[in-house]
Amino acid sequence: MSLAVEEAKKAAAIGEVPIGAIIVYKDEVIAKAFNLRETTQNATTHAELIAIQEACAKIGSWRLEETTLYVTLEPCPMCAGAILQSRIPRVVYGARDAKAGCVDSLYRLLNDNRFNHICEVTEGVLAEECGSLLTQFFRNLRAQKKNQKRV
Amino acid sequence: MSLAVEEAKKAAAIGEVPIGAIIVYKDEVIAKAFNLRETTQNATTHAELIAIQEACAKIGSWRLEETTLYVTLEPCPMCAGAILQSRIPRVVYGARDAKAGCVDSLYRLLNDNRFNHICEVTEGVLAEECGSLLTQFFRNLRAQKKNQKRV
Repeated sequence: MSLAVEEAKKAAAIGEVPIGAIIVYKDEVIAKAFNLRETTQNATTHAELIAIQEACAKIGSWRLEETTLYVTLEPCPMCAGAILQSRIPRVVYGARDAKAGCVDSLYRLLNDNRFNHICEVTEGVLAEECGSLLTQFFRNLRAQKKNQKRV
Repeated sequence: MSLAVEEAKKAAAIGEVPIGAIIVYKDEVIAKAFNLRETTQNATTHAELIAIQEACAKIGSWRLEETTLYVTLEPCPMCAGAILQSRIPRVVYGARDAKAGCVDSLYRLLNDNRFNHICEVTEGVLAEECGSLLTQFFRNLRAQKKNQKRV
């Protein structure tokens, strides 16, 4: 998870909401990514989705069996859906997302046996660090906007 | 929707599950796509997701305001999530997907006011044609497998 936190910091450094993701396949990191929505102006470029695409390319299959996804924030519906689509067996996340989280907060999409895949989920790993990156980012953003208004 | 059906037929022609999507922006078709999961071996290459990425590139923004997405099958959780992320205001789909549909069947992700976006949804447009493309595709696939076993 500390590698995912490093990715999230790279996002913050370029003004992106700091969320990072890592995919591990048989003890090897095969994908690293951070949120790039503003840079790319592409709504699908969340950290998890970029990492899943990278991992599929690396493994050469849409089935990401024997992988674990580490992500700093609880996945949104799009990313939770992409986790199901790619059959990732294990997901570890940091902080909960009370507004859009679809693993535990609003829905439990990764644990619904009506879908053709179910994940093993671990939450709360480095949760404080993952969450405070986000809190700090938005605090700075608000301060900047306030300063801009003054100028 | 007939354009989306044409896209779905292109998928079937190359052995992909026949699902097609179109995005219209101010009366102009700005993106056309069909499911490419087997060809790309990338779990995220559903018709809707490819079309959304194309449309973002075309408009130059992750916000797809003033657009309508037409898709032959009810979106899965990943694609419903991508619709929310890209703020598409209107979604029109053909057939329901009882096994994975997240617009009406299993969940109503596009009409949950806890998220920061809600869509206007129309279902059942050319539903029979959209659905029978899929039924026929899977019927052929089963017949092929049966024949292969015999050989």
